[in-house]
Amino acid sequence: MSFATLPAPPYYIVSFSSRRTEGDQGYGDMAVKMAELAAQQPGYLGVESARDADGFGITNSFWMDEDSIRAWKRVVDHLAAQKTGRETWYEHYEVRIGRIERAYGFSRR
Amino acid sequence: MSFATLPAPPYYIVSFSSRRTEGDQGYGDMAVKMAELAAQQPGYLGVESARDADGFGITNSFWMDEDSIRAWKRVVDHLAAQKTGRETWYEHYEVRIGRIERAYGFSRR
Repeated sequence: MSFATLPAPPYYIVSFSSRRTEGDQGYGDMAVKMAELAAQQPGYLGVESARDADGFGITNSFWMDEDSIRAWKRVVDHLAAQKTGRETWYEHYEVRIGRIERAYGFSRR
Repeated sequence: MSFATLPAPPYYIVSFSSRRTEGDQGYGDMAVKMAELAAQQPGYLGVESARDADGFGITNSFWMDEDSIRAWKRVVDHLAAQKTGRETWYEHYEVRIGRIERAYGFSRR
């Protein structure tokens, strides 16, 4: 995974931290599909994701406003993925939603 | 890495996404030291971190308020680590700072 190209703040973050269950169980395919579907939603700005070899991962997605976050949570195919997530893919997850107020970065020449 | 135990919102997030340069070059030791030092700062609430095998990582740290974030950025040993980060450890990083407004989670029994 790599960096999202984002506008200047303010914008919103959905920070999704998770520990996966063992085995793929269809997770990889779903993750690709959900990333594609999220990218089509109104207000979507970008996503960044990393997962340790031991199964702990963080996905930060970025959105124009809270309405677009709430709308994405209710998209039918996403609701189905959330359900399978709780039943099959995740041991534990934590979601934090907030407003990014400032941002800066560094890149090597 | 694993989940931080956080109070109910509101609180603040520093989301640090980075791509590492090749080789350790003292990074592992520094990361442990900085995590210990951060945990001693006033207003520190917790940290979560994950890094892909290919070197892209996300560290989300959580703080009581913006003043504690600004103070941590200015701690002398942390300033030195930031400098070596730009010179040696990181190809690229992006920092986003904001206020977490709501949170929820799921854990398997």
